[in-house]
Amino acid sequence: MFWDELKYDDKGLIAAIFQDAQSGEVLTLAWMNREAVQKTWEDKRVWLYRRSHGRIMMKGEQSGNVQNVQEMLVDCDRDAIVVKIEQVGGAACHKGYRSCFFELVTDEAELAAQGEPLFDPAAVYGKG
Amino acid sequence: MFWDELKYDDKGLIAAIFQDAQSGEVLTLAWMNREAVQKTWEDKRVWLYRRSHGRIMMKGEQSGNVQNVQEMLVDCDRDAIVVKIEQVGGAACHKGYRSCFFELVTDEAELAAQGEPLFDPAAVYGKG
Repeated sequence: MFWDELKYDDKGLIAAIFQDAQSGEVLTLAWMNREAVQKTWEDKRVWLYRRSHGRIMMKGEQSGNVQNVQEMLVDCDRDAIVVKIEQVGGAACHKGYRSCFFELVTDEAELAAQGEPLFDPAAVYGKG
Repeated sequence: MFWDELKYDDKGLIAAIFQDAQSGEVLTLAWMNREAVQKTWEDKRVWLYRRSHGRIMMKGEQSGNVQNVQEMLVDCDRDAIVVKIEQVGGAACHKGYRSCFFELVTDEAELAAQGEPLFDPAAVYGKG
């Protein structure tokens, strides 16, 4: 199985890029361990390793914004993955934005937020 | 300047995703240090930190397949970058493929190479 052929780092993790299968927009860079890769492939929904919880968790478990897997690709060094997904709920970022990459570098080398959050993180995660 | 606001890891590096600005195809995941981020922004061509050389090098320096920068985006944790680029020469991968992510995960959970190399690595890098 391909998860046995991947190169995990010294923490047992591999970088995974999550990309909207339709638009091609890059939504998130996150980390998976071997268990998360296998579970994602089997479940056809994205699972990630959460260091803060010490276990794998389904992406969107709390917010409902799960990611349905369309395709998985592995790079030439087998130490990175692209997962093409359908984003349920429209927002991949825990800050409520569609993509985690919502800050654009301007011509003045500053960061400028693009667009608006699609949900209120405080309401969803109860930190408000 | 934005390169001072990024979160570099304990090796001084940040993950960068290189994406074709036209097609949206993810071409490479690579690592930059602060110097590489600044140089890339200033030069409008991609520079990477090469651990094997202990210094930053221009992407495509040897193969001619340089990457012209169109846009840079930073994620919510400021510990990852997306760089939208124009790929000169058509191939981003040192194995000659257009994208480093040329192995597709099949329905049998195996890896299957997609497409053909656009150049011969042995001829370009002199390892033949």
